[in-house]
Amino acid sequence: MIKIGIVGGTGYTGVELLRLLSAHPAAQLTAITSRKEDGLPVAEMYPSLRGHVDLAFSSPDKAKLTECDVVFFATPHGVAMAQAPALLAAGVKVIDLAADFRLQDVSQFEKWYGMPHSCPEILKEAVYGLPELNRARIKNARVIGNPGCYPTTMQLGFYPLLKAGVIDAGNLIADCKSGVSGAGRKAEMSLLFSEASDSFKAYSVSGHRHIPETIEQLQAMSSDRIDLLFTPHLVPMIRGMHSTLYGRLTRDISNDALQALFEDAYKDEAFIDVMPFGSHPETRSTRGSNMLRLALHRPNNGKTVVVLVVQDNLVKGAAGQAVQCMNIMFGLDETSGLKHVAVMP
Amino acid sequence: MIKIGIVGGTGYTGVELLRLLSAHPAAQLTAITSRKEDGLPVAEMYPSLRGHVDLAFSSPDKAKLTECDVVFFATPHGVAMAQAPALLAAGVKVIDLAADFRLQDVSQFEKWYGMPHSCPEILKEAVYGLPELNRARIKNARVIGNPGCYPTTMQLGFYPLLKAGVIDAGNLIADCKSGVSGAGRKAEMSLLFSEASDSFKAYSVSGHRHIPETIEQLQAMSSDRIDLLFTPHLVPMIRGMHSTLYGRLTRDISNDALQALFEDAYKDEAFIDVMPFGSHPETRSTRGSNMLRLALHRPNNGKTVVVLVVQDNLVKGAAGQAVQCMNIMFGLDETSGLKHVAVMP
Amino acid sequence: MIKIGIVGGTGYTGVELLRLLSAHPAAQLTAITSRKEDGLPVAEMYPSLRGHVDLAFSSPDKAKLTECDVVFFATPHGVAMAQAPALLAAGVKVIDLAADFRLQDVSQFEKWYGMPHSCPEILKEAVYGLPELNRARIKNARVIGNPGCYPTTMQLGFYPLLKAGVIDAGNLIADCKSGVSGAGRKAEMSLLFSEASDSFKAYSVSGHRHIPETIEQLQAMSSDRIDLLFTPHLVPMIRGMHSTLYGRLTRDISNDALQALFEDAYKDEAFIDVMPFGSHPETRSTRGSNMLRLALHRPNNGKTVVVLVVQDNLVKGAAGQAVQCMNIMFGLDETSGLKHVAVMP
Amino acid sequence: MIKIGIVGGTGYTGVELLRLLSAHPAAQLTAITSRKEDGLPVAEMYPSLRGHVDLAFSSPDKAKLTECDVVFFATPHGVAMAQAPALLAAGVKVIDLAADFRLQDVSQFEKWYGMPHSCPEILKEAVYGLPELNRARIKNARVIGNPGCYPTTMQLGFYPLLKAGVIDAGNLIADCKSGVSGAGRKAEMSLLFSEASDSFKAYSVSGHRHIPETIEQLQAMSSDRIDLLFTPHLVPMIRGMHSTLYGRLTRDISNDALQALFEDAYKDEAFIDVMPFGSHPETRSTRGSNMLRLALHRPNNGKTVVVLVVQDNLVKGAAGQAVQCMNIMFGLDETSGLKHVAVMP
Repeated sequence: MIKIGIVGGTGYTGVELLRLLSAHPAAQLTAITSRKEDGLPVAEMYPSLRGHVDLAFSSPDKAKLTECDVVFFATPHGVAMAQAPALLAAGVKVIDLAADFRLQDVSQFEKWYGMPHSCPEILKEAVYGLPELNRARIKNARVIGNPGCYPTTMQLGFYPLLKAGVIDAGNLIADCKSGVSGAGRKAEMSLLFSEASDSFKAYSVSGHRHIPETIEQLQAMSSDRIDLLFTPHLVPMIRGMHSTLYGRLTRDISNDALQALFEDAYKDEAFIDVMPFGSHPETRSTRGSNMLRLALHRPNNGKTVVVLVVQDNLVKGAAGQAVQCMNIMFGLDETSGLKHVAVMP
Repeated sequence: MIKIGIVGGTGYTGVELLRLLSAHPAAQLTAITSRKEDGLPVAEMYPSLRGHVDLAFSSPDKAKLTECDVVFFATPHGVAMAQAPALLAAGVKVIDLAADFRLQDVSQFEKWYGMPHSCPEILKEAVYGLPELNRARIKNARVIGNPGCYPTTMQLGFYPLLKAGVIDAGNLIADCKSGVSGAGRKAEMSLLFSEASDSFKAYSVSGHRHIPETIEQLQAMSSDRIDLLFTPHLVPMIRGMHSTLYGRLTRDISNDALQALFEDAYKDEAFIDVMPFGSHPETRSTRGSNMLRLALHRPNNGKTVVVLVVQDNLVKGAAGQAVQCMNIMFGLDETSGLKHVAVMP
Repeated sequence: MIKIGIVGGTGYTGVELLRLLSAHPAAQLTAITSRKEDGLPVAEMYPSLRGHVDLAFSSPDKAKLTECDVVFFATPHGVAMAQAPALLAAGVKVIDLAADFRLQDVSQFEKWYGMPHSCPEILKEAVYGLPELNRARIKNARVIGNPGCYPTTMQLGFYPLLKAGVIDAGNLIADCKSGVSGAGRKAEMSLLFSEASDSFKAYSVSGHRHIPETIEQLQAMSSDRIDLLFTPHLVPMIRGMHSTLYGRLTRDISNDALQALFEDAYKDEAFIDVMPFGSHPETRSTRGSNMLRLALHRPNNGKTVVVLVVQDNLVKGAAGQAVQCMNIMFGLDETSGLKHVAVMP
Repeated sequence: MIKIGIVGGTGYTGVELLRLLSAHPAAQLTAITSRKEDGLPVAEMYPSLRGHVDLAFSSPDKAKLTECDVVFFATPHGVAMAQAPALLAAGVKVIDLAADFRLQDVSQFEKWYGMPHSCPEILKEAVYGLPELNRARIKNARVIGNPGCYPTTMQLGFYPLLKAGVIDAGNLIADCKSGVSGAGRKAEMSLLFSEASDSFKAYSVSGHRHIPETIEQLQAMSSDRIDLLFTPHLVPMIRGMHSTLYGRLTRDISNDALQALFEDAYKDEAFIDVMPFGSHPETRSTRGSNMLRLALHRPNNGKTVVVLVVQDNLVKGAAGQAVQCMNIMFGLDETSGLKHVAVMP
């Protein structure tokens, strides 16, 4: 059994890790830390875990994280990089669900997250944890920067098109929509039921932290300079993310050939479902599961290809992807503990 | 492997059976019928099942249900009783999720469902499928009448009190609230998003079909005549049921003793979670899982005990309970295929 | 024009007062205070008011409330009683939407709200602002304690039955359900969209602050001792309140006679809609309007009468009722500024 | 008083017309037709209208529509063009909320709506009812084709940019999101609460009926050929529409100059609110009101201008706009009966 530690298990990615790992056949939940909730049984905060998780939160000093095989950080940005060096020194692998190990360009990290990077040397060996595009490196990684939720959809949606060089890398538009849980478990006015329900809005249109990470990764897929316009929106639903991606075709290509680019790229992937051309994936078809679904459209047979991508932001967009990385790192079946059928309706 | 047939798999209890059984370690989905959708792959109607269920709907005549070990009916009332005799004759067990085999009193069935009962002799051997109260008989049953969603909460909530004789059987009130999926997958105006969202109402206050079934079962728990007032309400949520039960205490009893009645009654139950006295269970703590949670209150230390009961109406209130019965009937671990942690948030 | 001051306009009852009063033909919004938001234009916090309200929040010291004709307090408990003496001395009328002037029994106030009452002498002259039951006294009041949302539904729903003495005053049950806005605009975890959406729960079952106020008022309707069991629940909707009231009939009475009790009691009321016997009112039929709807049921022609009551908790349950009181106090048409048709769907 | 007839008042645009017109100071509801609901009081179908609308539905033959001053058609496509000739002959003005009189290009109408146009000669004189762009012609019109909901946002959002010639007319993208009420009051599976709630999806991405109408109108604003990509999505909310519009700038222009284009274009408009540059309008800020709000962004000071547009799809997107047209046609104040403050929260 793999001994698991979780730092910061009180947020939504934390409880989702607990849901997934408590039922994982090869995982043994060993320690979960929360300075504020020291001593509180996890199941008291999350009654859904009653009967599944017996652990209590413990303060970081008591938690004996160095005895774990792997530690997940479901914390605000900055926490993982502070603790990673000691854990690595003790032979513990680290998977960070925040941004500390996502961006190789330290100046970009410091610009967007407003803090210096405390361990750039570890950052250098860190691997970006998107299995479908980075599986080989994940296998041997000691430190994983788990991708952001939006970036996962943008990368997997644009990848086959950019790799084939059929769209204009300098004119990408991603109009993305996320359920409210994507903002985390924070007591903020704008996230209240009475504020976010029965309404819809864009936010951070002038600049969002998921941009630099996405551009860094997309740039690796194309020799042309990437220009990406990313517009996030808030949807009155708990889970779910829908990205509507627009690419301008740069050469003549049939719809069948477009479809084939995606089917070929993802034919061996357990967690990517390329739907028939012209389909309309719904976010609920991924609720609670690690599946990402996508479908292609080409309205009026024109110059723009539209890729519709859906996922559960807390699973494939966060905790599920992290467990998928863990499975790869520890030589397990990649789908181990991740076979949930989506809850629908 | 147990060969499974499902009749009427296009509704919500049908797709929920598919979600549960497609991941059940001992079940093999063999046939699923729908006259209207003959030939349509199940996963086309429910994309959440893509990659999990390869079956197509087939019309009843082609479906070879007699080759199954057990057939679930997720159909309107009246279908199961028409097909049960032939299936039983062929040695197939039957689990009906509708009302055909719930009521031993045929006249009550005919009064509330407006149709004659076509096989009263089979009804006589049918077993009411509430495992916590009826496990021994389920074990040897050939035909199961799977309980209604509301009745499950009312019976499990009132049982320890009635058995101990501490409340007035003649003055029971059940104020119950259900998510919209409880009404089924029917194209009716009142179930539209724009009608049911952001609103709340009672319905069928003057009489609801779940009353006779509940009274028949409650009556078996008490030598006094049961009088039950049942008020169902519609909540703007997809899944979830919350029953607020009121019983008038007929004798002096401490809160600890009340709590002990429940803890004793359910101490060996995998799917009943008796929460600490004074808790407030939330429906979401059961979303997608087969758990029923309950908690006791006694406001102002007065004469009324309040029992709060929550469950997922499609799981413990329907498909999950049916699978639990199947597990018992076939000698499997009762929790087999039913270990899902609730999806929260 | 009546010069209006609002203290604490940043919460939901505050913005609702602004919605109603900005369109009121006889009201002139003069001052709105918020210590924290001093200088912020109201319409920046609530864009819905852009083009309707030009005022900015000002700190209490600058606000010149003494130049108003009436000041509404949409504040936490305790604020109104601190400021009321000075305002009254300056000839300004006071309408408090919190609890400071609701309870004549000071010891009850102090027990439930955990603070001493700072001006019991003013409390003595304060009038409970439920127009349908207290219109004459409101007309001449200087200080109004505006009723709580739940108490409004319980009083108007039980009143005709208690007055006629047809139900057992010692066995009243009110199973009540409120939209989330009833909890106010507070950055609390339990009110987050991701916590409160797609779920349902009871809360404060062992005791809620609206009990003493309701009992004090109900007791005035009956010579028998009132015993009330009140169970509040949280519904995943923004606005709306649904109270399901249960009364045990103490004598033989026809359904027509029961219905007549309500129709007679409320026949001249502009804001009470007695629906036909057996109806199921929906909260959405009152969304944004000052109307309270109710309907009677008597399941199985038994001993219990069920009253279903719905209202918009922010209008008839709070701001609308306060404006209705203001209209009465200033000799205006009682419906002035309150004629909104509910927004449906 | 203007005598009003409504054909097809049972849908959402119908009931919204009733909400608005029953409170309109110059309107007298005279007749409302429904073949199916002949004799049913309108308020029985829509309890929100109890006390506000006394009319009953009547079958078309009894309804005496020719005695009205104006008749609104809130009907499926094809109904208005069948009845318009007789009404016009009787001197009655016609406002069609469906598509019969929106498209001057008959072949486009026939292609997208699958029926021949029965009165092309009347179509010729019909005026497209978007007051902000077409006020003078509306004033003298006998027949109005009331704009679609999506087209209203796209036209008002792109207009100042196209008129000024600062964006590439051949590369417009409109990523639009609508509440579920936009689909109308139809008993369809996909519109059920349990299907549409807590989920998000695109639909009709390969072609939607609002495209030809929008292109016909946009083409009139530009001498370059319009190429528009329109992607509609369904949001789990009742009312509200959010359009995210992307235009590629064709020349150097400052953000201030962009903002000025909008402020100048709409400075006299009562129902268009140009928010500060960089704002994020929320749909709820327009709930129940006739206001359309918009805001500009220019991410990374790049080549693309983003226009965020919100409205209530049933008000400015349908019934409110129709009443606004009526006000203009009958010489009333354009805001008459349309001054509602949005209901928020």
